[in-house]
Amino acid sequence: MIVVVGSIAFDTIETPFGRRENILGGSAIYFSLAASILERVGIIGVVGEDFTDEYLNYLKSKNIDIEGIKRVKGKTFHWDGYYEYDMNQAHTVKTELNVFANFHPEIPANYKNSEYLFLANIDPELQIEVLNKFIRPKLVVADTMNYWIEKKMDKVLEVIRRTDVMLLNDGEARELFKTPNILKAAKSVLNLGAKVVIIKKGEHGAIMFTRETIGSDEPFIAPAFPLEEVIDPTGAGDSFAGGFLSFLSKSGQINETSLRKAVIYATVLASFTVMDFGPTQLDKVSYNEIKVRYNKLLSYTKFGKI
Amino acid sequence: MIVVVGSIAFDTIETPFGRRENILGGSAIYFSLAASILERVGIIGVVGEDFTDEYLNYLKSKNIDIEGIKRVKGKTFHWDGYYEYDMNQAHTVKTELNVFANFHPEIPANYKNSEYLFLANIDPELQIEVLNKFIRPKLVVADTMNYWIEKKMDKVLEVIRRTDVMLLNDGEARELFKTPNILKAAKSVLNLGAKVVIIKKGEHGAIMFTRETIGSDEPFIAPAFPLEEVIDPTGAGDSFAGGFLSFLSKSGQINETSLRKAVIYATVLASFTVMDFGPTQLDKVSYNEIKVRYNKLLSYTKFGKI
Repeated sequence: MIVVVGSIAFDTIETPFGRRENILGGSAIYFSLAASILERVGIIGVVGEDFTDEYLNYLKSKNIDIEGIKRVKGKTFHWDGYYEYDMNQAHTVKTELNVFANFHPEIPANYKNSEYLFLANIDPELQIEVLNKFIRPKLVVADTMNYWIEKKMDKVLEVIRRTDVMLLNDGEARELFKTPNILKAAKSVLNLGAKVVIIKKGEHGAIMFTRETIGSDEPFIAPAFPLEEVIDPTGAGDSFAGGFLSFLSKSGQINETSLRKAVIYATVLASFTVMDFGPTQLDKVSYNEIKVRYNKLLSYTKFGKI
Repeated sequence: MIVVVGSIAFDTIETPFGRRENILGGSAIYFSLAASILERVGIIGVVGEDFTDEYLNYLKSKNIDIEGIKRVKGKTFHWDGYYEYDMNQAHTVKTELNVFANFHPEIPANYKNSEYLFLANIDPELQIEVLNKFIRPKLVVADTMNYWIEKKMDKVLEVIRRTDVMLLNDGEARELFKTPNILKAAKSVLNLGAKVVIIKKGEHGAIMFTRETIGSDEPFIAPAFPLEEVIDPTGAGDSFAGGFLSFLSKSGQINETSLRKAVIYATVLASFTVMDFGPTQLDKVSYNEIKVRYNKLLSYTKFGKI
C-alpha cells in the first residue's frame, strides 16, 4: 500500500471555462485517485462533519483505504481560487483551514510498514512529523509550495535532506535556490541529499535529475502531453505524484529506467486531470486510456541518430 | 547552396553577464554561420561602408557566398538591446536602420535556382518580394517577429500561406492567432497553407506540427539542450533556422524522419550560440561537438514502453 499525507478539501474553483463550488479536492484526494488506478492507497488526513459518509464511501469504492482519515467536529478545509487566461498561476481568494488548523497526523498501525510514502505540500513540520513515524519506507516522495518556501525555508530544506524524491515546480525551484537556472537549482536539491529531483514545468513538461547512485547522472527531459484545452489545472501536480509513485510501487524497481517510465506515466495522469474541473477525469480514466497517451508520447518524442 | 535574406548588423548587447559593443550580428549572419557548417550559404543583404573587407573576408572564409551582400554609402544596421535576468525577452534600447531603411533585395543570377531559401524576420513585404524572384525552391522556411505581426499582420499571413515551413516563437504564435494554446495556434498556421510549423519555446524546447501530406499528423516534441548558463540569447532563433535548413539540405530528404532530426540538430546549434556573446561560439563549434550534444539529447529523452 502507498500512504499519502495531505489535504482533503472542498474547493471552489473559477477558470475561464467556468466555476465549480465546493467540489471534492485537496492534494491527498488527487494523489489517491491517480495512484489508486494501479495500487491501493491509504490517506492520512482530517475532514469535518460536512465530509459525509457518501464521500468516504466514494473513496472506499476507489481502492482507497480511509482508516487514516480522521473526521472531527467542524468544517473541512476549503480553498477558493481562480485562474486567469494563461492558467499557469493559481490565485487564492481565500483559504479556510477549518479542521486542518489543528491537524496532527495519526498513522494507523498497519500503515507504518508501507514502503511508499508521499508527503504532499502541507506544512513541512507536519511532513517531518509523519516521516519520523514510519519504520523504513523504501521510497519517500515529497512536494512543497511557494507558501512554505517563504514561511519555513529551513524546514523545507530539512524535508529535502530526508526525502528520496523531491518534486518542485520550476518557479519553486528558482525561488528556493535563488537562481533563474533550473539545472543549478536541481543540483542544489541533489547536493542537499535528495536522490532524485523532478522539476515540473506545467505545459512545458518536466525534467528529472538523479544522483549517480541511481545509476545515471543524466537529466531526463520529459514532454507534457499536448492538449488543445486545459479546463482546470487544479490537482495536476498531485495527480503527477500519484501516477509517479504508483508506477514505481507497481514495478517494484527503482532505477533510471523505471523512474523515467514513472515520470511519463505521471505526466499522462496530470494531462487527464486538467481536462475537466476537479477530479472528474481522474474518476473516469482507465488504465487503457492512460496507456494510449503514454504510447503517443513515445511516438511524439522519437527521433533518429545522425 | 542555401540562400538567406535577412539583416546584417552591428549589435550592442547587454546581459547580466556583460556588455559587448558593435559586434557582428543580424539574422542573416547567425543563420549563415550555423548553416555553413554543413552547406554553402549565400547571403542577400545590405551593409554600409563600416562593414569593411575584413568582415566580408571573414564570411568568405566560413563557406559563405557574399555576392548577394550589397555594400552602400552609409552605416550598417545597428541594434542596441539588453536582456534582464530571465533572458526570455529582448529589450530594445534603439534600432538604427541606416542602410537597411532603403533595402530592396537584389538576387544574384546564380542564387535564383537555389533549392533552399530562408526568409529571416525582416519586413514581410521584403520576404514576399524575394519569394517572387525565385524560380522554384524545394523548401522555403520563414521566420517573423512580434513587430511585423503588429504592424503588417496581413503580409505576415501571406508569408505563412506561401512558405513551406513557418518558424514562430510561442509568444508570436499566441499573438498571431489570439489564443493562449500553442496547439490551436499551430493548427491555424497549417490551415493557412504552411506544411510545417515549428513553435520555438526557448529553454523549453520546440514543438513541430506537420500536415498529413508530409506523412504524419503527429506533433514532435523536442527538448532544449539543458545549459547551466545562458550568456546571450541573441541569434538563437536564427541559428536554429540555420541548423534546421542546412540539415535538410544536406540530407536531401524532406519527410517526418529528416524533419525531426533537423529540429534536434537546430536545437543543438542554438544551444551553442547562447553560450557566449554574439556568434562567438558559432564561429568555433565543430560538427563533432554538435554530434556529441545531439547524441546526448537522444539519451536525455529516451524512455521505454510500458
